[in-house]
Amino acid sequence: MYDRIYNFAAGPSQLPLEVLEEISKDLFNYHGSGMSVMEMSHRSKDYLAIFEEVKATIKRIMNIPDNYQILFIQGGATEEFSAIPLNLLKKGKADYIITGNFSKKAAEEAKKYGEINIAYDGKEDYVHIPSQNELKLSDDADYVYICANNTVYGTEWQNYPKTRDIPLVADMSSDICSKVIDINDFGLIYAGCQKNFGIAGLGLVIIRDDLLYDNGITKPVLMDYRIQAKNDSMYNTPNTFAIYVLGLVAKWIENKGGIKELQKINEKKARLLYDIIDNSDFYKGHADKDSRSNMNITFALPDKELDELFVKEATKAGMVSLKGYRTVGGIRASIYNAMPIEAVEKLANFMKNFEKEHK
Amino acid sequence: MYDRIYNFAAGPSQLPLEVLEEISKDLFNYHGSGMSVMEMSHRSKDYLAIFEEVKATIKRIMNIPDNYQILFIQGGATEEFSAIPLNLLKKGKADYIITGNFSKKAAEEAKKYGEINIAYDGKEDYVHIPSQNELKLSDDADYVYICANNTVYGTEWQNYPKTRDIPLVADMSSDICSKVIDINDFGLIYAGCQKNFGIAGLGLVIIRDDLLYDNGITKPVLMDYRIQAKNDSMYNTPNTFAIYVLGLVAKWIENKGGIKELQKINEKKARLLYDIIDNSDFYKGHADKDSRSNMNITFALPDKELDELFVKEATKAGMVSLKGYRTVGGIRASIYNAMPIEAVEKLANFMKNFEKEHK
Repeated sequence: MYDRIYNFAAGPSQLPLEVLEEISKDLFNYHGSGMSVMEMSHRSKDYLAIFEEVKATIKRIMNIPDNYQILFIQGGATEEFSAIPLNLLKKGKADYIITGNFSKKAAEEAKKYGEINIAYDGKEDYVHIPSQNELKLSDDADYVYICANNTVYGTEWQNYPKTRDIPLVADMSSDICSKVIDINDFGLIYAGCQKNFGIAGLGLVIIRDDLLYDNGITKPVLMDYRIQAKNDSMYNTPNTFAIYVLGLVAKWIENKGGIKELQKINEKKARLLYDIIDNSDFYKGHADKDSRSNMNITFALPDKELDELFVKEATKAGMVSLKGYRTVGGIRASIYNAMPIEAVEKLANFMKNFEKEHK
Repeated sequence: MYDRIYNFAAGPSQLPLEVLEEISKDLFNYHGSGMSVMEMSHRSKDYLAIFEEVKATIKRIMNIPDNYQILFIQGGATEEFSAIPLNLLKKGKADYIITGNFSKKAAEEAKKYGEINIAYDGKEDYVHIPSQNELKLSDDADYVYICANNTVYGTEWQNYPKTRDIPLVADMSSDICSKVIDINDFGLIYAGCQKNFGIAGLGLVIIRDDLLYDNGITKPVLMDYRIQAKNDSMYNTPNTFAIYVLGLVAKWIENKGGIKELQKINEKKARLLYDIIDNSDFYKGHADKDSRSNMNITFALPDKELDELFVKEATKAGMVSLKGYRTVGGIRASIYNAMPIEAVEKLANFMKNFEKEHK
């Protein structure tokens, strides 16, 4: 009807069509207010109702306990990995587990403000998520930092590290709400919203109350989680439209049966592609089998020319942005929540046919 | 057709209807790309074309010289008034001219990082914009800071301060593109976009090349203007959708004949309301006459009950968010670029009739 294509980009990425339809319906006149959500004062009654509903929906679908705060911060993952050491360093030391370029960048940023212990370093190729006995955790860290899913390499934590009473901090930008997690396992979760949970320009932070301490570090006012929490994310004008879209995505998840149901579909979607890779000597998976992501499926064809041809032919068939990340090469299929299983089936069939033709 | 109302909010605020119509047209499928702009990878060909066009349009309509960089930063004015001292303090001292709560907050933030000289303080009531001889400028400041238009009080700089060779930094969040200015008079201009120039979640920074120096101050990576300039505002995923909307607003300004033509209309719009105020002993203007804003018209009725009744009746007549700011009281009509003159004429007639009825 709208002549849409399947967009396998790593992010920003595809939204559920139903969400775009809601946006369209509300665009000139949100629920009789006479204006678009984009035009609403963040202090208006209409907008505050949206805002409260978004928070409540996120709390419900993620099963967030009462002792956690939900913050909406402008920016994305980069903004948050700057804010985390500024807020959480207390004794001045933190453990970082490096499983890709985003955790590496986060550790580099944290080094500006404290002593950073690299508890594990996947080094250059990043095909592996470490098991507990591979980690060199400190006894005196203020927090332990991980990136839950690494889009570039197609790896994802299946079993989060055990950190005893040291708070675990996770960047869930690319797998938030894709599977059931227990929030209580984490001190802080954050996500840049443009992959699984909304659009670019917004960071979602879920922080346990006891981590809202004053650590004496001078920081920009908007990076102070205590100020954000105290002002309910409205110290300044928040990204009003992106918060509204996030709410629509959260409602969509709820209407789909919640994260539990989406997890089943996501596992099925990923299996469709991994099964082809594992039963083929044409396609070669990039990540270690036990470290694989259900969100970003990375693989390569026998040579670069075939990689390129694959991307080109897939584009013609209405499946775009399948090119692997620059430093990794090959193919990357990002199949976040919003990617329907029909699209993955279409890609799976395309892969089978392409193999037959080019083997 | 859409049953829209006139939204006189101070920000976020009304968008041109033509801009919403463009957004609507592109919503499911931007120019045959098969996707919404919200869903596009910021590195995709389609998005980069949008991005370059937005920059080029802003450069044209604002007549920005080649030795200035245009940066798109996530957040709004608060984010920028944090970033400015972090980037521009060099010798460690800056002059701040306080004409309202936003310049006051900016000065408080800057005090975290350097010695701040308050070159003028409008104190509590902020009805006045100082003239040159009221300013106590330093000889050795790294920059002089002003807020060009003060939404809360309805004041606006008509003649910017002369700062000799010390860079002038201006927060133009609420009057950017409302009148012709000479960019060369400024070292740095910034705006949170949600009033005259787009939607919330985006900060526009226009900075002269020579101010992109290394000052040795540790700062969050996204607050480093050098890094933002070097990466053309794409060190991280920018607020892709808000940049696109900003571009639509910029095109709209261009199609209206440019800033010069809008300035004429804005002056006419403001005069319509100020003439009523000045020819009445019922309405009382809030700001000093020589300090008045063309964007935010502030006034009060003889008593609080009448203020409230005015807001209530205006709402019924399809003109909303006219209530003055909490600390000022009275009425505030924000009439940014997107507010059509018909709306201001309607408000003017409403004011005349209300006076007749309630005097």
